[in-house]
Amino acid sequence: MAREIRINAFDMNCIGHIQQGLWTHPRDQSTQYRNIHYWTKLAKKLEEGLFDGVFFADVLGAYDVYGGNVDATLKGAVQLPVNDPSLLIPAMAAATTHLGFGVTCNLTYEPPFSFARRMSTLDHLTGGRIGWNIVTGYLDSAARATGLSGQMAHDDRYDLAEEYMSLVYKLWEGCWEDDAVVNDRERRIYADPAKVHRVLHDGRQYKVDALHLAEPSPQRTPVLYQAGSSTRGRLFAATHAECVFVNGQSMSGVRAIVDDIRGQAVKLGRQASDIGVFMGATIITGRTEAEAREKFEDYKAHVDVEAALVHASASMGIDFAKYEMDEPIQTGNTQAIVSNVEAMTRTAGPTWTKRKLIEQMVLGSRQAPLVGSAEQVADALMAWTENADVDGFNLSRTVTPECFEDFIELVVPILQERGVYKTAYRDGVYREKLFGHARLPQSHTAAQYRHGA
Amino acid sequence: MAREIRINAFDMNCIGHIQQGLWTHPRDQSTQYRNIHYWTKLAKKLEEGLFDGVFFADVLGAYDVYGGNVDATLKGAVQLPVNDPSLLIPAMAAATTHLGFGVTCNLTYEPPFSFARRMSTLDHLTGGRIGWNIVTGYLDSAARATGLSGQMAHDDRYDLAEEYMSLVYKLWEGCWEDDAVVNDRERRIYADPAKVHRVLHDGRQYKVDALHLAEPSPQRTPVLYQAGSSTRGRLFAATHAECVFVNGQSMSGVRAIVDDIRGQAVKLGRQASDIGVFMGATIITGRTEAEAREKFEDYKAHVDVEAALVHASASMGIDFAKYEMDEPIQTGNTQAIVSNVEAMTRTAGPTWTKRKLIEQMVLGSRQAPLVGSAEQVADALMAWTENADVDGFNLSRTVTPECFEDFIELVVPILQERGVYKTAYRDGVYREKLFGHARLPQSHTAAQYRHGA
Repeated sequence: MAREIRINAFDMNCIGHIQQGLWTHPRDQSTQYRNIHYWTKLAKKLEEGLFDGVFFADVLGAYDVYGGNVDATLKGAVQLPVNDPSLLIPAMAAATTHLGFGVTCNLTYEPPFSFARRMSTLDHLTGGRIGWNIVTGYLDSAARATGLSGQMAHDDRYDLAEEYMSLVYKLWEGCWEDDAVVNDRERRIYADPAKVHRVLHDGRQYKVDALHLAEPSPQRTPVLYQAGSSTRGRLFAATHAECVFVNGQSMSGVRAIVDDIRGQAVKLGRQASDIGVFMGATIITGRTEAEAREKFEDYKAHVDVEAALVHASASMGIDFAKYEMDEPIQTGNTQAIVSNVEAMTRTAGPTWTKRKLIEQMVLGSRQAPLVGSAEQVADALMAWTENADVDGFNLSRTVTPECFEDFIELVVPILQERGVYKTAYRDGVYREKLFGHARLPQSHTAAQYRHGA
Repeated sequence: MAREIRINAFDMNCIGHIQQGLWTHPRDQSTQYRNIHYWTKLAKKLEEGLFDGVFFADVLGAYDVYGGNVDATLKGAVQLPVNDPSLLIPAMAAATTHLGFGVTCNLTYEPPFSFARRMSTLDHLTGGRIGWNIVTGYLDSAARATGLSGQMAHDDRYDLAEEYMSLVYKLWEGCWEDDAVVNDRERRIYADPAKVHRVLHDGRQYKVDALHLAEPSPQRTPVLYQAGSSTRGRLFAATHAECVFVNGQSMSGVRAIVDDIRGQAVKLGRQASDIGVFMGATIITGRTEAEAREKFEDYKAHVDVEAALVHASASMGIDFAKYEMDEPIQTGNTQAIVSNVEAMTRTAGPTWTKRKLIEQMVLGSRQAPLVGSAEQVADALMAWTENADVDGFNLSRTVTPECFEDFIELVVPILQERGVYKTAYRDGVYREKLFGHARLPQSHTAAQYRHGA
């Protein structure tokens, strides 16, 4: 069989996720996000389509760069309001059997001890279908919301993240041995104390002396996702991540990132194939190219340009409300901004303006949509996997859940015909379905924290 | 109709909750706690029985007082392993329509900003059926697990709790006005920024400058439970709690606590009826008294005495492993220990020993079971509500879920015949079902944080 293409639904417990304004489309149901049955129904639908997983973004602050306030953010529902995504998963898991769940949790704002228990609980309740998207945070508003005085410098955040990871690995991998749970009613012994080990951690940021409160879950450590593309972020990914989430305009650009991360992973003793790469993709399809283009025009009429600027302002750290349409855009020089502006100037040219940015955001975000017949979409996805060496796609929603239904009804059968999409789920936990093993391999850095390692 | 009796199932996301050792009974299913379908099935069962709610205990540390270690704790599964209870609720809510959910969250270890969002998310996803049991923590092991150097003094914890409550009230009650959400697709306005207000908090412990990330949920503030029985704890309950959880050996003792809390609430401008009192109860029943007694003997044969001592040691701060059976028990003199020892000496007499304690723990805990035919149980519950002025009961599990099934099948119909138990759920959110109003009343301290208050 040709290289299998993996598909995640990319979603968020909010209204305006990536493509801003589409919640105003008459068929869009994203304002149902508060209804648990909306989510269980979606989960069943995605499982019918044999999606590998649903991947939840999250943010713990409000976008307040554009105009220096949250007015346009609230009007356009740009990731605000935003509810906790982890609480959707138990209900969606109860409604399904195989669908995986990736959830974004920002370690800056999650005390590690209770966070580790929360993830173990999710791994238990889902029967081993949980993944964690490791985020170290990038919003000043989140820092202020949680009582920190401001953002840490970028590299300090990664130092904190390294310490955090070592601590949660100790809890997940090191505390309970595999055969610690005896569950013997006759002898009245549930767990063998000799096989449960105290976790001691005395670090720069965290100090813990405890047992992990959860017994070993099917995967122990959740499947680890990460999305950093900075130099330090890629090293972090090469060290920890099993799935990497990338965005990009060109195949060669994405290929370079993928090669770099896989190359670094190999230097660290891992296999290149230990890392799965998921690329963000927005797909609009139909029974014919004409039908897809018509749908695209219909969707475009519901885009909220200001809301898209709100999101871009927050991502890039530039207040686009301050600029006239054709005024050259000035940029600051912090590391985060530079990397965003590099991406921008690659596509908009060295002199860029708000008008050019808006033209680029045809569907309410900087992620350009892929529009075409199901065959054309299948062609494009296969070309990306071959040329950019990506393993699959995180499908951003447009008009939801229609966008996922279209993909399942139209694109999945063609990918299956071509032999690049599964026709049934594999058995086993999430990691097993993705990589063939239930637990992190011995070559992963977490293995050093196992008892007796 | 006579005074209605409220019933909650009292449970925990673990194996050994209150009555230690009963997990070894052949019919007990508590070792299924990691299976989401175990919980959704239980939720449906409780809703069939018209239970007001299920109330989840939690603890974020391990019991290590007995023997100075966790050996007997692990062997007996005494609230260890223990998974996060909040993650059970979305799935149980999706499987039911009316059942309420009380969840214990310890504010000492929960950053208030993300906690407030988590509770709002639960209130949204359950359609307004969430309650919060406010706990300020009592385990040194939890403090060490979360990187704190040790427990705060008892009254300092209540100062912290007061500040925490004022902050979460600001987020839940003060940030979004009732009509802030417009949800107008035509005009492309989801929320009106003029009606969403920044929350500023600059306290001794917390500093926040943020918007609450969740739009107003059906109840805004969850139904507030509290269980403190110390002097300071009762003042806290009188100020904040809507439901109070009490334990007690004598009707007059419980009545005195209830009178005191209700009296203090009235002094603070609340109604006595604003506070519902739930008493902990362990019930073993059958078609006849003889059948109940037979069941009791069968259950007793599965009690784990050492596990019960583990739990008592942690609750009372006394290492019972150090004592011979008939050696008089020495006690320390911290406030927490004194109040526990008072309760103990009331029942065991001034000279008490491990033997006396064990005799008292007939079913694996200090909560004495109520054993009898369904009529006898109904008589006893009605006597408690009349004489001790309690509104209902938190039913501790024995052999589970059999204990809840027995109650539903045998006791509920009798209470219904007597006109003291509902025959159908009322409409409305959890607070409406309990108190007749969906939001906290104006007389509650949280009302001062509403916009324009």
